[in-house]
Formats: sequence, C-alpha cells, structure tokens
Amino acid sequence: MDPNPTSSDERELVLTRLIAAPREKVFKAWTDPELLKQWFAPQPWTTPVAELDVRTGGANLIVMRSPEGNEFPNRGVYLEVIENERLVFTDAYTKAWEPSEKPFFTAVLTFEDEGAKTRYTARALHWTVADRETHEKMGFHEGWGQCADQLTALVTKS
Amino acid sequence: MDPNPTSSDERELVLTRLIAAPREKVFKAWTDPELLKQWFAPQPWTTPVAELDVRTGGANLIVMRSPEGNEFPNRGVYLEVIENERLVFTDAYTKAWEPSEKPFFTAVLTFEDEGAKTRYTARALHWTVADRETHEKMGFHEGWGQCADQLTALVTKS
Repeated sequence: MDPNPTSSDERELVLTRLIAAPREKVFKAWTDPELLKQWFAPQPWTTPVAELDVRTGGANLIVMRSPEGNEFPNRGVYLEVIENERLVFTDAYTKAWEPSEKPFFTAVLTFEDEGAKTRYTARALHWTVADRETHEKMGFHEGWGQCADQLTALVTKS
Repeated sequence: MDPNPTSSDERELVLTRLIAAPREKVFKAWTDPELLKQWFAPQPWTTPVAELDVRTGGANLIVMRSPEGNEFPNRGVYLEVIENERLVFTDAYTKAWEPSEKPFFTAVLTFEDEGAKTRYTARALHWTVADRETHEKMGFHEGWGQCADQLTALVTKS
C-alpha cells in the first residue's frame, strides 16, 4: 500500500555542489545570521534581516530586499538540526507549531565529507506537483544556484 | 506585521479534560502502541494497528477499522516529544520529511498537573479555516470527546 500515489521525485527540486571547504564552514554559513546575510539572496538583492533560532522547533525569519527596496519576509521552523550534517526547515509553520497560510516547501540540506571538500545538497520537497512547478518557474535552479555560488565564494575565501 | 492574517483561533479545535490519573499514565496511553489501540478509535470502531516511533522525526501509522471492516490508515510524523508533558505530530509528513498528499492538521497535546489529576488538552491546528470546518463536521468534538472518555476509562481503571 503506497500512502502517497504521487512520486516524491515529481514534487522535489534538488541542487548539489562540491565545495572546497570543510562541512563546519558550510553549515555555519546557514546557521550564523551574520554569515547568512552575506550570501542568502541572489545579488543585487540583499538580506537585511536574519533571525535564526537553530534548534528543532525554533523559528527563522529571513527578509530579502529587492534592488527597488521592497522587502520579502520568509518565515519558517526548523524540523531537524544535526550539527554540520543536516538541517531541515519548512515554511509550513511560522513558529512552533503555528500553521502558516500556505505550506509550500520543506528544505532538507545535507553536508557530507567528500575527500577534503563538502558535498552540499539542498532538496526542496513540495506538497504538490503544482507547487514544485511554481517553484521551478520562480527560478529555483537559477536563484538557488546563484546563492550556492555566493555561499561557496564566502566559505572558500581565505 | 502579522505574518498570518487568519487568526489561529479560527483554524483551531480544542478539547480538554481533567483526568484522575497522573500525567505519566495519560502520556503513556498516547505513546505505548498496545495502550493506544485500546482507546484511540471511537467504539465500535477498533484500532488494529499502531506503529509509533515516538521521537522527533519519528513516524506513526495508526489504522482504524470500521464495524463493517473497512480500514483507514493515518500516517504522521512527531514534531516534538517532551516526555509526560507534550506531544506534537502532524499528517503533513508521512515520514521524515516526506510531504503527505494533503497537510490537514497538527495535533498539539499537553499534559499538566492539576492537583493530583492531569489537565489533558488536545489542540488540532489546521492550515485553513475550511479544513477546521471540515474537521468539525467530521465530528471532531464528538469523536475526540468519545475517545477522550475511552482514554480516561483506561488510565483511571484500578
């Protein structure tokens, strides 16, 4: 009995990078607010606010600002935090356990050793195929790709 | 700035009981599969299957069977487990962190001392007002009420 007739593959987007930095540094870029602000939004967008309560059930608020000065707040809750290994959060809650207006996706980030580098993988899991398609059209691959480049630049600089 | 224009009250259903048993016993009735099977479905319905991986990120599968023999599986994931105090799970995931077909509700159960008794409170938080209404029409108050009576009978007997 398959509890879920829609294959998870159809509802998932994935980005992966091999980064020449230790896992600890890549994980920290996701969990230290001052570091996250430096890479999270695709330039010339910026990230003026990052409040990260990094623990299971902890909330995050990340505000992105467009070049025109419009601000876009993103709220979520961490579901799983394994230091330097795994970070899971979702926008299905705005704080523990207040449902958001619209559960859109769950991010599963993994950080693995690959030689002296880090295999960084970001998976975006959606509740529906339509939401996965919307996320793709919003520019998931380009946007998350550019941000992954910015993240890489940050953690690999001297 | 209110991140959530719909009041949470409109999306919530609540049931509370004062139970003449210690917190530990009430919590255990929710977390021990053999105990849960004895009270979870409103009689004459039964609960032939209860698989409860009671830890953050652990999955549960609870099958209810109608008097006609039809089976209704319920799958969910525990979001927060504080022994004898608090238990949170949702049907938004079928396992960590596989999105379900339809995120319907999150259950927040609390177990508090009130004199020598236990204040048991079950909150069902929905993502939409429509889902809260559906849950109400499905007989939340009668169903969860009858099950709370069955739970009470179980934990207060000899």
